[in-house]
Amino acid sequence: MKEGIKIVTVGGGSSYTPELVEGFIKRYDSLPVRELWLVDIPKGEKKLETVGQLARRMVEKAGIPMEICLTLDRREALKDADFVTTQFRAGLLDARAKDERIPLKYGVIGQETNGPGGLFKGLRTIPIILDIIRDMEELCPEAWLINFTNPAGMVTEAVFRHSNWRKIVGLCNVPIGMKMGVAELLDVKPERISIDFAGLNHMVYGLNVYLDGKPVLDEVIGKLAHPDKGMTMKNIADLGWEPDFIQALRLLPCPYHRYYYQTEKMFEEEKQAAAESGTRAEVVQQLEGELFKLYEDPELAVKPPQLEKRGGAFYSDAACSLIDSMYNDLQDIQPVNTMNRGAIASIPDDSAIEINCVITKDGPKPIAIGDLPVPVRGLVQQIKSFERIASEAAVTKDYHTALLAMSINPLVPSDTKAKQILDEMLEAHGLDFVKRGGERTLVK
Amino acid sequence: MKEGIKIVTVGGGSSYTPELVEGFIKRYDSLPVRELWLVDIPKGEKKLETVGQLARRMVEKAGIPMEICLTLDRREALKDADFVTTQFRAGLLDARAKDERIPLKYGVIGQETNGPGGLFKGLRTIPIILDIIRDMEELCPEAWLINFTNPAGMVTEAVFRHSNWRKIVGLCNVPIGMKMGVAELLDVKPERISIDFAGLNHMVYGLNVYLDGKPVLDEVIGKLAHPDKGMTMKNIADLGWEPDFIQALRLLPCPYHRYYYQTEKMFEEEKQAAAESGTRAEVVQQLEGELFKLYEDPELAVKPPQLEKRGGAFYSDAACSLIDSMYNDLQDIQPVNTMNRGAIASIPDDSAIEINCVITKDGPKPIAIGDLPVPVRGLVQQIKSFERIASEAAVTKDYHTALLAMSINPLVPSDTKAKQILDEMLEAHGLDFVKRGGERTLVK
Amino acid sequence: MKEGIKIVTVGGGSSYTPELVEGFIKRYDSLPVRELWLVDIPKGEKKLETVGQLARRMVEKAGIPMEICLTLDRREALKDADFVTTQFRAGLLDARAKDERIPLKYGVIGQETNGPGGLFKGLRTIPIILDIIRDMEELCPEAWLINFTNPAGMVTEAVFRHSNWRKIVGLCNVPIGMKMGVAELLDVKPERISIDFAGLNHMVYGLNVYLDGKPVLDEVIGKLAHPDKGMTMKNIADLGWEPDFIQALRLLPCPYHRYYYQTEKMFEEEKQAAAESGTRAEVVQQLEGELFKLYEDPELAVKPPQLEKRGGAFYSDAACSLIDSMYNDLQDIQPVNTMNRGAIASIPDDSAIEINCVITKDGPKPIAIGDLPVPVRGLVQQIKSFERIASEAAVTKDYHTALLAMSINPLVPSDTKAKQILDEMLEAHGLDFVKRGGERTLVK
Amino acid sequence: MKEGIKIVTVGGGSSYTPELVEGFIKRYDSLPVRELWLVDIPKGEKKLETVGQLARRMVEKAGIPMEICLTLDRREALKDADFVTTQFRAGLLDARAKDERIPLKYGVIGQETNGPGGLFKGLRTIPIILDIIRDMEELCPEAWLINFTNPAGMVTEAVFRHSNWRKIVGLCNVPIGMKMGVAELLDVKPERISIDFAGLNHMVYGLNVYLDGKPVLDEVIGKLAHPDKGMTMKNIADLGWEPDFIQALRLLPCPYHRYYYQTEKMFEEEKQAAAESGTRAEVVQQLEGELFKLYEDPELAVKPPQLEKRGGAFYSDAACSLIDSMYNDLQDIQPVNTMNRGAIASIPDDSAIEINCVITKDGPKPIAIGDLPVPVRGLVQQIKSFERIASEAAVTKDYHTALLAMSINPLVPSDTKAKQILDEMLEAHGLDFVKRGGERTLVK
Ligand SMILES: [Mn+2]
Ligand SMILES: [Mn+2]
Ligand SMILES: [Mn+2]
Ligand SMILES: [Mn+2]
Repeated sequence: MKEGIKIVTVGGGSSYTPELVEGFIKRYDSLPVRELWLVDIPKGEKKLETVGQLARRMVEKAGIPMEICLTLDRREALKDADFVTTQFRAGLLDARAKDERIPLKYGVIGQETNGPGGLFKGLRTIPIILDIIRDMEELCPEAWLINFTNPAGMVTEAVFRHSNWRKIVGLCNVPIGMKMGVAELLDVKPERISIDFAGLNHMVYGLNVYLDGKPVLDEVIGKLAHPDKGMTMKNIADLGWEPDFIQALRLLPCPYHRYYYQTEKMFEEEKQAAAESGTRAEVVQQLEGELFKLYEDPELAVKPPQLEKRGGAFYSDAACSLIDSMYNDLQDIQPVNTMNRGAIASIPDDSAIEINCVITKDGPKPIAIGDLPVPVRGLVQQIKSFERIASEAAVTKDYHTALLAMSINPLVPSDTKAKQILDEMLEAHGLDFVKRGGERTLVK
Repeated sequence: MKEGIKIVTVGGGSSYTPELVEGFIKRYDSLPVRELWLVDIPKGEKKLETVGQLARRMVEKAGIPMEICLTLDRREALKDADFVTTQFRAGLLDARAKDERIPLKYGVIGQETNGPGGLFKGLRTIPIILDIIRDMEELCPEAWLINFTNPAGMVTEAVFRHSNWRKIVGLCNVPIGMKMGVAELLDVKPERISIDFAGLNHMVYGLNVYLDGKPVLDEVIGKLAHPDKGMTMKNIADLGWEPDFIQALRLLPCPYHRYYYQTEKMFEEEKQAAAESGTRAEVVQQLEGELFKLYEDPELAVKPPQLEKRGGAFYSDAACSLIDSMYNDLQDIQPVNTMNRGAIASIPDDSAIEINCVITKDGPKPIAIGDLPVPVRGLVQQIKSFERIASEAAVTKDYHTALLAMSINPLVPSDTKAKQILDEMLEAHGLDFVKRGGERTLVK
Repeated sequence: MKEGIKIVTVGGGSSYTPELVEGFIKRYDSLPVRELWLVDIPKGEKKLETVGQLARRMVEKAGIPMEICLTLDRREALKDADFVTTQFRAGLLDARAKDERIPLKYGVIGQETNGPGGLFKGLRTIPIILDIIRDMEELCPEAWLINFTNPAGMVTEAVFRHSNWRKIVGLCNVPIGMKMGVAELLDVKPERISIDFAGLNHMVYGLNVYLDGKPVLDEVIGKLAHPDKGMTMKNIADLGWEPDFIQALRLLPCPYHRYYYQTEKMFEEEKQAAAESGTRAEVVQQLEGELFKLYEDPELAVKPPQLEKRGGAFYSDAACSLIDSMYNDLQDIQPVNTMNRGAIASIPDDSAIEINCVITKDGPKPIAIGDLPVPVRGLVQQIKSFERIASEAAVTKDYHTALLAMSINPLVPSDTKAKQILDEMLEAHGLDFVKRGGERTLVK
Repeated sequence: MKEGIKIVTVGGGSSYTPELVEGFIKRYDSLPVRELWLVDIPKGEKKLETVGQLARRMVEKAGIPMEICLTLDRREALKDADFVTTQFRAGLLDARAKDERIPLKYGVIGQETNGPGGLFKGLRTIPIILDIIRDMEELCPEAWLINFTNPAGMVTEAVFRHSNWRKIVGLCNVPIGMKMGVAELLDVKPERISIDFAGLNHMVYGLNVYLDGKPVLDEVIGKLAHPDKGMTMKNIADLGWEPDFIQALRLLPCPYHRYYYQTEKMFEEEKQAAAESGTRAEVVQQLEGELFKLYEDPELAVKPPQLEKRGGAFYSDAACSLIDSMYNDLQDIQPVNTMNRGAIASIPDDSAIEINCVITKDGPKPIAIGDLPVPVRGLVQQIKSFERIASEAAVTKDYHTALLAMSINPLVPSDTKAKQILDEMLEAHGLDFVKRGGERTLVK
């Protein structure tokens, strides 16, 4: 066995890659990455080349012996990998634009992760992930898969339900963003804050918040109840919480919760944004164009500061910290997507959840919370069922299963709208789903 | 101990009472009701008198020795009762009209059981039920409470959570109506149909349907998928199910499910009805007026056929069958609201559910189903949390608890609307709820 | 489809068969058995012939058109069966004698169902049952399997864990015997008694006892606390309960519980009996000889009364009632072995339990009890784990799995004794189990 | 608020105290103990004085400003404490000797924690703990109680079941001893080993063992299967595991498991030891005498090495590490006794378990394991029920509850022996338990 770590990044041509590279450079002492393989599809070859060259300049400047390998041959890359990270975007931003635009026509938020858009992103993404896993079973059976590709919760669920692979961790920067947000609210350094995270991806709550280990949830809630002060992410409008509502809830919601607790306002906001500046997908397309222009500059040998606008703040930190803790068996606490194993009582034991875990060489081990607070159990259960049925639809390509997923999504107001949106989206994405009726193996 | 059974009906002046009386008359051989006490409040004295006289004429005509006792003194009535049935309407139909009208102004369905209207009906009803229970603990500790008063699920939950009384059964005519509807769809006699009911009150599903014991769910679903054929109740518009949706769901929904799966259409329907013929409360007020006119006729000595229009079809059958099975330990199967005890896995063991039970002298014993089908777990969980938090608000009269219940109701689209509707309804009903902040003992 | 029911009895040459035949004759009006196929193995051909002729005389005398078919070809019999009952004894009484004798040498009770003997009976029986199921999947996929063969709990567990067949009910006469015993204790007719049964096969408890639907557990416990009055079965010594113990337990134990709560006394009793009159197997061998002599009498055309001594009292009633209720969808309550589905919280949902069920055409549906009383959860869990691991050993023929089952059995006092008994029994039964070490797929 | 930490040790006159003092001295930089209060009862005054003087000499020699306060007034000590540790021995070693001697007469191991002896130790200890908690609620409501007093599992269970106090951690040196034992087996430094602990106090298993984060359970099992090599504690005989058994189990048992998996051999060992050198209590009495003689030496200013023989190895490390991690919110992993909260599926959520936890300022948070391996669920459940019923008996002083606890203990072979042992022990300890019959509130 060679010294050092081999990491493979599927979707390596993404504009996010410099984040990752920077993270590995910073941690080189504890996490000696020998080879970083960036893999992409032929359509992404040019971006891969651009990003790859930047990565090489960054590594060179840092003066560390990390080899950057670029390839379109995923199987070549996967051979003997130690960690595989996935950050590809199936269908690229064009597909995302459809995921967002079509539902809007029906008065419904697209929401590219837990909404109708997320259903379609899952339908595109899950078969690829399961394909990667089949390769990993053959080529690097000891490796861990660290998935960033959204919808990360649905993808993790799909892997648990539709493969025998268990060495997967789903990762998201929402929890770390919430921690940063709380630190800002309280005007303290982030490392003094800790939060008991539990829920699902993009549906995670802070059950308790601590400053230097002492509970300060009530203080944080008090600050959130001032409508002039919010806490959100680059890609989600901050409309403030209804002060009495946030006091009634007495939990720290995540930015995505606005889609469910402020559905009307969020819809109006999205509709207006789509009309004025384009949907989020369209904004991102523009941003990406600008970023790649910067990346092409042969003088650039660091991550450009403009990347942070892109919405993926802290991704690098989250991902590299996770890999570091796994590689070095650090047994520290990080919120990730993993198998429930009883940590949340009302979610099935073998479903994916997002929760604080002890991160070990043997994977994440979830900290038991008993059950979610009563007020949020229903919404969380609803999204969990949505993820589970959607992941089944991705595998079976059954029309009724997909319709069921669409219908039970909390953003979709009726059976008829569900069908209309589904039909138009299937058509727009060129997907051919079958009506099997009684035959299908719907989860019960 | 005297021979025969003493039954007390709280809200005895209701227009439904002749249904009950007819039921007891029909079953006199197996269920010898010695005394039927009809109790009401002073405001209902006139109706009580009218209904009571009709009841006496019915009994006399039937030639059975059942004594009809009328009183405004609940405690006098409760003494040594064997069964207490509750069918009172707290705040009468005026209150219901507010429950329905106010949400409509905000674009929200009032829904007098599981919607915003149901929250307020619960806030009015639960303290009275808990008061009745305190009397029963003292005056008839061996009696069973059979509750028909809506929201029946929330009321049963409240009794389990906020009293030590366990001898309560919540009863609803929705399941029996579904059975009748299926029989009609299949054009067979109702007694040949059986249905595996599970869920919550007004949120119950038929998991399987049997004809002569053989599974026929797919056949029933096939018929429901023809949009010209529906299955509903007198008081709920039948808009037909989206054929592909009902095939995707492959469960028998109850009529109230339309509020959740067809929210927009139902809202439009309610709004139009309210504008044209008044809300359901207003329609019922009219119907009741007509009924009482009939009841006053001293020649009338049977239940008048017009009563069936009223919406409570089969109530009599459901209630009298239940009491009969309990009194005679028949151990037959009936769907009622009772304590979960593990019958539905993802609902807390000590919560109220509506489920097929074996009816015994020792109360109903729920038949275990494992868990609800994945697609409906979220919605059911959401209503269960709503019922639980609402019942806590009814007891604590805490503003934020009430707001939380309102906010998590699936019919309410945002935190801000929740607050607006709550505030206007609290005002309209003259309720004074307190903001306690951190002090309140919210269920977690 | 032909009119009437086709029933197949595997192990049809058993001395119990006249019980069954009598039962079917009595119920012919509601349960029209067209053909009763008695199947046995070549070694049992003579007994099969004897019993079959007696059955034919019984049917003829009763004047009903039930055809008795005798065959050694199981597959011929299974074709298009409606119900298959299994009552064979793998290895016959010789094997049972070993199951009982060998443990005794090590100071351990053999106990042919939940003890070391039961482990070996399971190892012999389970492969045959799984074989029958493979035939049924092909030849009568709509039929129900009603299993009487012991260890009935372990067999049912094995079918749930190691096949996809779900249409199995495990049946035992212990619960009906307990009901008869209580009736005798209270000196009332058995039909006035009902009992809430829950637990495992031969490890079932009466949680409550009712007389005419009214709870009388305390009265029954009071009577059991009189040491001169017990309640047991023909094949289990009645040593009386320690009065204070039974009052402390406040549950109705089954006769087999004596093996666990009175281990020493039971051991002494068995040892002495084995020395004086032979083990139970040997006593039964003698009894069977006498019975078959009676059966051969061509004048005999009814079940001879001597059969009741044999230990299977009420088997006929239990089996025929079950088939009757299933065939006619009677939806009455009977205690059987079925899948848990959440009915007992601390037992896995997909494990076999013995519990009161509603008996329907679609199979038994367990009545939820919440959880077993705290004092008995451990013992029940221990036997459940024993059954589960033993059933895995029967399928994998893995030495360490079999040893684990033996070691965790509550009757076996140490790791070393477990190994000694296992080794001698494997040898005596000519079984060849493999040591696979880390490879084996032990349930976790 | 004063700087530094105030710690109160109830049972401060114990021979173990120098362990604790040494631990606090070593960690003074991170864990600045301002005052260490040693509390004892009048009967222990002399020992308290001796130990207290030694502690003062130790602190002085270490040159740190930690004040050692000695008192017989518990309430004075508790005022404003930050941590309270309990290490008292109710009834002293005389009582323990009875706990061990009496069962032996009946052929039963006394086992002072999870056996009949443990029941009586619990009956003596629990009321005192609940008394201390009542004082803490008043005098130091923010403090944490760290309980070392055995039976630590039963005591923690009692606090959860019979008080509203939640700030308790039960601590034992068995897990750390197992870690040391594994390190020795593998001949590596202990800090390279980590173990997934789960179970109950003195009934804890290592589910997985890691060396530098990599799974090595099979290697450890392989070594344990060599009968010449064991892993145990000072106070438990090491008889070696049956090699095939330990390979079948494939879990790391704790030393106390020998009492359950090797009952006969352990009994013989204990009986012989009792005859030759006295029971463990008697051996300890002798050891203590010698230790106190050493402690009296005014020249002694360090923990004497002889203390390690005493059986409490690593107690100091376990206790001081725990307090350090809590005080400094270190969020590291330690195995302690805490509330389940779903971490182990088949144990009630609100029961005490011993499990790996993240140790925070807000207390320990258990890591979810799903469920215990099937083979050990029964035994663990049995001890859990024993602990739960025993703790109820300690509070209610009900005879039948105590008898039930005794009867279901896996070391007790029959109802009759249970009663005999109970009666003799109640008599010997001068305890007066009441027979309440149906009245008692037995957990169900
Ligand atoms: Mn994310
Ligand atoms: Mn209703
Ligand atoms: Mn049996
Ligand atoms: Mn210990």
